[in-house]
Amino acid sequence: MPDSTPTFDDILAAAARIAPHAHTTPVLHSRELDAMAGCTLLFKAEPLQRGGAFKFRGACNAVWALSDEAARRGVVTHSSGNHGAALALAAHTRGIACHVVAPDGAVATKLAAIARYGAVLHRCEANTAAREAACARLQTDTGASLVHPFTDPYVMAGQGTAVLELHNAQGPLDTVITPVGGGGLLAGSAIAMATLAPDCAVFGAEPQGADDAARSLAAGERLPDFVPDTICDGLRTPVGVPNFAVLQRHKVQVLVADDRETIAAMRLVWQCLKLVVEPSSAVALAVLLKHRERFAGQRVGLVLSGGNVDLDALPWSHT
Amino acid sequence: MPDSTPTFDDILAAAARIAPHAHTTPVLHSRELDAMAGCTLLFKAEPLQRGGAFKFRGACNAVWALSDEAARRGVVTHSSGNHGAALALAAHTRGIACHVVAPDGAVATKLAAIARYGAVLHRCEANTAAREAACARLQTDTGASLVHPFTDPYVMAGQGTAVLELHNAQGPLDTVITPVGGGGLLAGSAIAMATLAPDCAVFGAEPQGADDAARSLAAGERLPDFVPDTICDGLRTPVGVPNFAVLQRHKVQVLVADDRETIAAMRLVWQCLKLVVEPSSAVALAVLLKHRERFAGQRVGLVLSGGNVDLDALPWSHT
Repeated sequence: MPDSTPTFDDILAAAARIAPHAHTTPVLHSRELDAMAGCTLLFKAEPLQRGGAFKFRGACNAVWALSDEAARRGVVTHSSGNHGAALALAAHTRGIACHVVAPDGAVATKLAAIARYGAVLHRCEANTAAREAACARLQTDTGASLVHPFTDPYVMAGQGTAVLELHNAQGPLDTVITPVGGGGLLAGSAIAMATLAPDCAVFGAEPQGADDAARSLAAGERLPDFVPDTICDGLRTPVGVPNFAVLQRHKVQVLVADDRETIAAMRLVWQCLKLVVEPSSAVALAVLLKHRERFAGQRVGLVLSGGNVDLDALPWSHT
Repeated sequence: MPDSTPTFDDILAAAARIAPHAHTTPVLHSRELDAMAGCTLLFKAEPLQRGGAFKFRGACNAVWALSDEAARRGVVTHSSGNHGAALALAAHTRGIACHVVAPDGAVATKLAAIARYGAVLHRCEANTAAREAACARLQTDTGASLVHPFTDPYVMAGQGTAVLELHNAQGPLDTVITPVGGGGLLAGSAIAMATLAPDCAVFGAEPQGADDAARSLAAGERLPDFVPDTICDGLRTPVGVPNFAVLQRHKVQVLVADDRETIAAMRLVWQCLKLVVEPSSAVALAVLLKHRERFAGQRVGLVLSGGNVDLDALPWSHT
């Protein structure tokens, strides 16, 4: 695989590579939600993936693509969220070391999950320079391979396997919608659908308080400098450089919803699909309902990306 | 089928009859829960069944077993809970009328679901005599067939298809645990497992505040007179006469958990399996964790029966 961007064949290879370790997640459907949306909604239920999020797909692909020699030196990343936990779990499936650099102030339950999967936690100050320095030091000291949460091509290819499964189970689809933060899932999905169903539109769903992908596509250049303000803790990252290039190349569009709309959509998913999803997942349904006239009568695939949410702090009361 | 008790063949017939209408629900698994329980737990995810509960299986079997002539006159039941909604939905799949007698004071969201599936609601006073009188009057007036929520043999046979699927997907199992209220699911499961895997133990899980099945089995006679006091709104009914006979015949044991234990188990299911379950489902995991030494090292199948819960009134705060 080239350094930068995976191909459709890389996604097929990823699907084969992760098959012994990852779940083929079910596709859920609700006539009630269809009636509200005015179209047919097919939800890929990634909260039921190992680790509770699609992130395991990419991490698992990256871990198992390593040579035996590289694998022996372990992997390292700087994510205190679902990618950190997914990489820890993926490393565990291969029996190799995993180092996770977590900034001060990271969510305690997510750190606990990372530790439970057997990774070594390294704390650092909560800024990009400190995180990158800590990661670089660990790479030097241990020889571990960096697995970036969304720019790594093996990660991107792995994330593309979710819509591959969705297409194989429920295709043809008129539209696919996934959340977009760093853009690993959205770029992988765009690459997959461009070959599987070139006429299928691919949309990203982004919180208004971190809408850099939407603004960047409109401006024709990447605009990574912003201060995120959204409940969607998995989507506060600016879209990555190779990810943005993929979105441009494949004419991906990005739609935006505010947190109030996302929380309402999250509640609908819990109620109608009986699936625990986090806000970063629900934004996909939120943009669909907000722009329902664009999707009237279509078959729409949505990737519900993860379900790692704090049950003691449910946001219904903010709606 | 005889009037009273279905056979294993009736369960196979039910599986074939409902196949075009019901979902084959997934089986979920969590290494974290396995570690807590000290055994392998395989969860049949009936909240993902149509209507959000296993009840659709039995209702669908009863509706589609009717002759065309009987079907034309519709069906009637007296359940304001998941069975009422399931029968409404099942009647809808056959395009026939459904009457549901609902006592004053029934939960508004469940009544709304029954109405949404197209059934005619008939209100009555909240006592057994009033419900039965209203049902009998509707049968006389319309010729509709009564579909009892748990003593109807077609209902019992339909409920048995959940563990049939679980066994086929994940067997062999050492133990199967299902919740028990009226006993349709538990009796159907006992009949199914007696043929599929005679050495597999079958347990019922019952809330302490409605533990008539446990007390009845201990006494050797049905003890239906009690005032239920439990958060498990689906399990407040005394076990039915034919259901009790099946439990005795197949040496089913019933274990009990209190509501505090059930709420803690419900929270674990939401967190580890990402599945929205109602308290009446979670009691199965609650009794397993309470009596974990009995199941050490086993492969245990649990039926998570439904997920129709009021998201505005989550009970964590009572734990």
